Amino acid sequence: MPATSAETPPAADLGIDHFWAVVPAGGAGTRLWPLSRSGAPKFLLDLTGQGRTLLQATVDRLTPLVGPRCLVVTGAVHADAVRAQLPEVASEQVVAEPSPRDSMAAIGLAAAMLERVDPEAVMGSFAADHVIGDRAAFAAVVEDAVAAAREGWLVTIGIEPNAPATGFGYIRAEATLPGLTALRVEEFVEKPSREVAETYLATGAYRWNAGMFVVRPGVLLDLLAEGDADFAAALRELAAQPERIEEVWPTLPKIAIDHAVAEPAAAAGRVACVPGGFAWDDVGDFASLGDLLDQLAADGATLRVLGDAASVRTHDASGLVVPAGGRTVAVVGLDDVVVVDTPDALLVTTRNRAQDVKTIVAALKEDGHDAIT
Amino acid sequence: MPATSAETPPAADLGIDHFWAVVPAGGAGTRLWPLSRSGAPKFLLDLTGQGRTLLQATVDRLTPLVGPRCLVVTGAVHADAVRAQLPEVASEQVVAEPSPRDSMAAIGLAAAMLERVDPEAVMGSFAADHVIGDRAAFAAVVEDAVAAAREGWLVTIGIEPNAPATGFGYIRAEATLPGLTALRVEEFVEKPSREVAETYLATGAYRWNAGMFVVRPGVLLDLLAEGDADFAAALRELAAQPERIEEVWPTLPKIAIDHAVAEPAAAAGRVACVPGGFAWDDVGDFASLGDLLDQLAADGATLRVLGDAASVRTHDASGLVVPAGGRTVAVVGLDDVVVVDTPDALLVTTRNRAQDVKTIVAALKEDGHDAIT
Repeated sequence: MPATSAETPPAADLGIDHFWAVVPAGGAGTRLWPLSRSGAPKFLLDLTGQGRTLLQATVDRLTPLVGPRCLVVTGAVHADAVRAQLPEVASEQVVAEPSPRDSMAAIGLAAAMLERVDPEAVMGSFAADHVIGDRAAFAAVVEDAVAAAREGWLVTIGIEPNAPATGFGYIRAEATLPGLTALRVEEFVEKPSREVAETYLATGAYRWNAGMFVVRPGVLLDLLAEGDADFAAALRELAAQPERIEEVWPTLPKIAIDHAVAEPAAAAGRVACVPGGFAWDDVGDFASLGDLLDQLAADGATLRVLGDAASVRTHDASGLVVPAGGRTVAVVGLDDVVVVDTPDALLVTTRNRAQDVKTIVAALKEDGHDAIT
Repeated sequence: MPATSAETPPAADLGIDHFWAVVPAGGAGTRLWPLSRSGAPKFLLDLTGQGRTLLQATVDRLTPLVGPRCLVVTGAVHADAVRAQLPEVASEQVVAEPSPRDSMAAIGLAAAMLERVDPEAVMGSFAADHVIGDRAAFAAVVEDAVAAAREGWLVTIGIEPNAPATGFGYIRAEATLPGLTALRVEEFVEKPSREVAETYLATGAYRWNAGMFVVRPGVLLDLLAEGDADFAAALRELAAQPERIEEVWPTLPKIAIDHAVAEPAAAAGRVACVPGGFAWDDVGDFASLGDLLDQLAADGATLRVLGDAASVRTHDASGLVVPAGGRTVAVVGLDDVVVVDTPDALLVTTRNRAQDVKTIVAALKEDGHDAIT
């Protein structure tokens, strides 16, 4: 429970009334190795070259909407790094999980804490490692989502797709909800094949599931309780007795919030979707990072450098180069190549094969090379 | 003039009587950047991963043929490194050129020195940065070449081609010389196109020009004098008065021995060729190095590592990786790739584009990045 919030309630004029951000900061980002590591996960990195890490950019984006009302839930091993990157977030608002137990436990614990602190709270959960292009558009969509959440809906933000992406799940929603800028969600669907994704786009009824949920904490926990009463009860006990975390945490189910709550609630007709027209990316791999940097720069260059461009020399080359090893990097005669240079590890691949980077990391881990993973 | 040789004449039973090796050790090997540098030229590197540098392997290969009768001619800036790599070669047998003046000056000075030291000398000049597969076959060919040289011929060793290479010059020679295992050279021809190289191979009369010359020092200098009497005289003066090198050296023509002597002598019917059936490579670029390592290993592997194989991780990759930066190198989904990792510079290219590496080095030099070239 965030002690400062209890002692000095945040000023009501900062952001949307009683609106709290919950930022789950987890996941190593294995497919972004060797930039991301177990000890330096994706959210702690500046992947856009704009001087802020993904975590910092996430909080920057949320602060106008929530003022100081922000909980970051992260692994105990990363809590100090998170606090160091976020001096504006009170130390006790960084909640440390003793071990990774997937998103339901992380977001559910934050919900249980907020339920006690602020009976009128609406919470919005936004991953610490996504990139969003247009903050004003994002803010407007979140305001609409909060309005729907106050009516008791579990609200998700569905990103208007600009391509038949196969790396994201989709949300099907068509019927407008009376009095709200929101649609009723019919179902969440898994990552589709290219062909299926194309049919989704053709209907206009599908949006990308960005994993953003806006909801009243009690609604979320009650929905969870319908499927797993013990889980919801354990989270509420933990919020009342935070000193028991080491004992209770390892007993919680390891399940994603999508499976634990969002999918069954959608089937029951209790999920709303506010469509978001802003650019969004989960920066899942180097191909996605390259696309994102192309969009940010929009200068038509075919060779993108994340870092000191002066240290990169190319001849007939296109793709993405990350010169993070402090050395000269030369690329000759390769298209759509990905070169990621760090002080202790180097990756060379292509945009097309960027997903397969995880096989290297898995092999390194298996061989006990933990120092470089 | 090699003082030790004058004081303690080499024992006659070591190697071929009065046969001297001359090893020009020059050329940076720009197309092997970033492995080779101005300060660490190709001949000082172990490019085969067998624990000896190209220079050391060259001297190892010649020692059974010449005993201690070996002159190495190298740039003054590399003389100390050459001496350190060759403890078995007397310090004064490493001849330092004040500045690079191409192969005629380097080999001609050695000839003029040997002409004074040993009136019966036959010299063989062998570049310090080539790789030869079969030392016994090489030795047998050199013995035949020495026999022809004793008869007054300028003898070159022509490598039997196993492919229509376009990166080497060719030697045309058909008629056998009476009493010798040698052919009369008709002409030296420049690097051909692929189509022309194929017609060369079809005739059976063409061999690769490996730049190996075996000749009596006086014959070489006299052939030079026919085209440029002053040049030959200057070299002979220098051998008599080595203390004048700083004064005389900068006045010598900058010309390759091929143009100054071998081509005109061939036109005059005074060049012989001993065909060599051994594997030979000038390791001109990373494609050539990759081919060479393939031949040396002959294990059918498609991904070749020069260095510590344990530090290289690949997934669906083929080509050449040189992990000389002390880091983990991962390559995913690239065929015929070339990755050369060093502590301060990294190259990523393909076997097909290996020639273009020189454009990067040229650009770096132009921008004043001398430290890494």
